[in-house]
Amino acid sequence: MQQGYVTLAHGAGGRQSARLIHDVFRGYLDNPHFTEDDAAVMEVPAGRIAMSTDGFIVSPAEFPGGNVGKLSVCGTVNDLSCMGARPLYLTCSYVLEEGFSLETLDRIVAAMGKTAREVGVEVVAGDTKVAGKGQVDGCFITTAGVGRVLDGVAPAGDKAAPGDAVIVTGDIGRHGCAILLARNDFRIAADVTSDCAPLWEGVERLLTAVPDTHVIRDATRGGVGTVLYELCDESGVGIRLDQEDIPVDDAVAGVCGMLGLDPLYLACEGRMVVIVPQGEEDAALEALRSSENTAGATLIGRVTGTHPGKVVIHTAIGSEAILPEPTGELLPRIC
Amino acid sequence: MQQGYVTLAHGAGGRQSARLIHDVFRGYLDNPHFTEDDAAVMEVPAGRIAMSTDGFIVSPAEFPGGNVGKLSVCGTVNDLSCMGARPLYLTCSYVLEEGFSLETLDRIVAAMGKTAREVGVEVVAGDTKVAGKGQVDGCFITTAGVGRVLDGVAPAGDKAAPGDAVIVTGDIGRHGCAILLARNDFRIAADVTSDCAPLWEGVERLLTAVPDTHVIRDATRGGVGTVLYELCDESGVGIRLDQEDIPVDDAVAGVCGMLGLDPLYLACEGRMVVIVPQGEEDAALEALRSSENTAGATLIGRVTGTHPGKVVIHTAIGSEAILPEPTGELLPRIC
Repeated sequence: MQQGYVTLAHGAGGRQSARLIHDVFRGYLDNPHFTEDDAAVMEVPAGRIAMSTDGFIVSPAEFPGGNVGKLSVCGTVNDLSCMGARPLYLTCSYVLEEGFSLETLDRIVAAMGKTAREVGVEVVAGDTKVAGKGQVDGCFITTAGVGRVLDGVAPAGDKAAPGDAVIVTGDIGRHGCAILLARNDFRIAADVTSDCAPLWEGVERLLTAVPDTHVIRDATRGGVGTVLYELCDESGVGIRLDQEDIPVDDAVAGVCGMLGLDPLYLACEGRMVVIVPQGEEDAALEALRSSENTAGATLIGRVTGTHPGKVVIHTAIGSEAILPEPTGELLPRIC
Repeated sequence: MQQGYVTLAHGAGGRQSARLIHDVFRGYLDNPHFTEDDAAVMEVPAGRIAMSTDGFIVSPAEFPGGNVGKLSVCGTVNDLSCMGARPLYLTCSYVLEEGFSLETLDRIVAAMGKTAREVGVEVVAGDTKVAGKGQVDGCFITTAGVGRVLDGVAPAGDKAAPGDAVIVTGDIGRHGCAILLARNDFRIAADVTSDCAPLWEGVERLLTAVPDTHVIRDATRGGVGTVLYELCDESGVGIRLDQEDIPVDDAVAGVCGMLGLDPLYLACEGRMVVIVPQGEEDAALEALRSSENTAGATLIGRVTGTHPGKVVIHTAIGSEAILPEPTGELLPRIC
């Protein structure tokens, strides 16, 4: 492991850069296509590819349940998965602050490598820039990915139809809650780990069982509530949730209660909203539950044609309430 | 054009984000595969693809001859071109500082779109994060790209062989010099524009004329000198340059003279080092010179087996000097 701190020379493209690439990046990410050249070259068969990118500026860079390296692989892997695409190749681009700890960087890259191997995706090309002290906050990572879309599937945000089943793949809001606690702004102690996880295995099983899955979307920045409102908008439908069925960890619910936050608007980094045709919900739930990272899949509601553009919650006492629309502010800000 | 400033809500994934994506990004980058979904989906034929990424943190974000948006397209387009790959699809990921001018952002995205259209590459997916004031310096862009490697070509850094011709595709060091002057740290006035340009057209013509081209590498961060030392190392050869043949703009030479900088170590963003087998240099030069952005292609030296690992310069007065090895520091720091 390299010790010490990131210097401007680590980003200048000379010997220090080469050593960082060779020792740290190749050390953890090595694969047959990994390149120290300008671009990696891979052989691909004919077909549909998906392509996606995501930038990660989470603070702190390490949190219970993960770090920005794991997050940056999961984020792009999950974006590809949402299109029904098997993740194949990733690129990663680092912007490091001068003075950033090389030991922390080592743990971040190690987590990238571990997660990539779990998914079976190769990190084939990268870039590292070093910004002067104060020009960037720690470590920013941008990943981009290419995947192969499975034959015969085409999930999309405009396919939700009245009667469809609305599923979440596990308890919600843990990532946002874990980051909030890790910052320690509120001095609350609670045992919450991020849900940050790669979801391709669950998606592949889902699409094998239910190829006609209408929608798959990961509930990241704005949480499940924001995704549901996006889908209402794109599909021209309403969604009705059963409050009692929405899975929320007790500790997350407790923190939300103390701070007046809604877990439906807390970020997840390992949870998806899945919408399948009426009658397919049991097959979908069984497929998702067979994979570790989507084992907590739960039916939380139905698509409806009666109140287009609105998410309505059927509460435990039998009343119906409209979920407030997303404001565009992240509460808490976690990226 | 949007007016005002970037707010945290522009990065929160809600309505403000959607408006930014729709008005600015789609406005300038629209193409048949552009997605506001999690990933773009494209049909590809079987064959070799190249994949690359690059992060851009240049300050100032706008400079004579370009801005960070143009730069971020050229960088990845040129990395793909160096592998003999026709650039097809790009992703772009923005990290914006809260308070960044929306009018500047508009010009940056407009330049991305213009450059992408010139090359015939599509920006198909993107991401925008907003960092709090002071957490990032202005506007960072990371692009990633996928290209299709031409049949029958395989340029690589380890193929330089004694006798090969060493070519640069235009006068060197203008990007580094332009950035240095734009910062105004030295209060020098000189008319220098960046060489920032997409190079695919020149590369395609080169590879059509000389399919057996041994090496193509763009001389970015460390300039032509750093690239030449990398190639000596990778190919186990030496390189001998003729000082009088190295093209340097008079204004760049003047600035370098005043500040004690070597133009061989100033960054370029639109210049490549090309190495072709002995006897192919005339065909290579003719092909490169037929494309506007490589019209200044010049033979500057030869690969040699007599002093492996060294770049030697034959000077105007007939002496031979060893080019100092790159130090790993960028002088000036331009990224």
